[in-house]
Amino acid sequence: MDYNSLEMKVAVITHDRETNSPVLILKSEEEGSLLPIWIGPYEAYAIMMEIEGIEAPRPMTHDLLKNIVSALGADLEYIEIFDLSDNTFFSQLILSTEDETISIDARPSDAVALALRCSANIYVSREVVEAGGAREGDGKTKLDKKSIDEMLKDLKPSDFEAGDAGNK
Amino acid sequence: MDYNSLEMKVAVITHDRETNSPVLILKSEEEGSLLPIWIGPYEAYAIMMEIEGIEAPRPMTHDLLKNIVSALGADLEYIEIFDLSDNTFFSQLILSTEDETISIDARPSDAVALALRCSANIYVSREVVEAGGAREGDGKTKLDKKSIDEMLKDLKPSDFEAGDAGNK
Repeated sequence: MDYNSLEMKVAVITHDRETNSPVLILKSEEEGSLLPIWIGPYEAYAIMMEIEGIEAPRPMTHDLLKNIVSALGADLEYIEIFDLSDNTFFSQLILSTEDETISIDARPSDAVALALRCSANIYVSREVVEAGGAREGDGKTKLDKKSIDEMLKDLKPSDFEAGDAGNK
Repeated sequence: MDYNSLEMKVAVITHDRETNSPVLILKSEEEGSLLPIWIGPYEAYAIMMEIEGIEAPRPMTHDLLKNIVSALGADLEYIEIFDLSDNTFFSQLILSTEDETISIDARPSDAVALALRCSANIYVSREVVEAGGAREGDGKTKLDKKSIDEMLKDLKPSDFEAGDAGNK
């Protein structure tokens, strides 16, 4: 990764009542900086299910992503969020095979959902953290621990954990 | 694939008002048999976006799946729905690389969303078609062409076509 990148971890997924959108909050444990990323509901569930250790009876889409990477003999080395442009975050997956290293364009939500499943590090360039970030306690980003429980309460297992069903 | 399999195509995605779930309808053009599969809302959108030719500004999860397969030098040969057990459909992706052919377990909804993106054939074993299928006009499955337009009307581009956003 860029030498100027910061390792960050998933701090929490919360919910922005104003936009009615899930927000993924990344945190640098070293520096305390936070990076909020507004993501889609399905990707939020994919991240939460991994964090909460909920195993689906059938492979969900991000489980399938992981299984394909592994079946094709590749490893996810790390993911990197490297740009914030027109209010959209850009990231890439860094995959390694026996012969080469490959980078693949991905949204941060997909990249993080895959990184968690592969125990891969999450790096964010300092420019992105400065442009899109916040700090704990500055009021710009409210970390609401309760929201996770609320979202998990709203999680309908039938929507997100089930296999594709027949006409019963 | 199994010599006993039937090639099917996506006929339509409709909506089951009773279960409030999207239903993917596969159809054998040769034999006229239909196979309804109850799937998740996100997977339904992923299939519809491809059918309707809607291109997202950032790669959605199933676009990423396709890009990973391609970047790792593999081709999706075909997908196969081979079992219906406990009211759950089971399918697999058949991928080929230079050296080998690999099969990967996947839900039919993910498999079909990927097959459409890779122009790969969809095969269904005759046993599954017999166990879970229907025929046009038998009243068991109502093909409601209007439902697609209704679902597309409800499709919020902000949820399904956007990139991950910053705090603007």
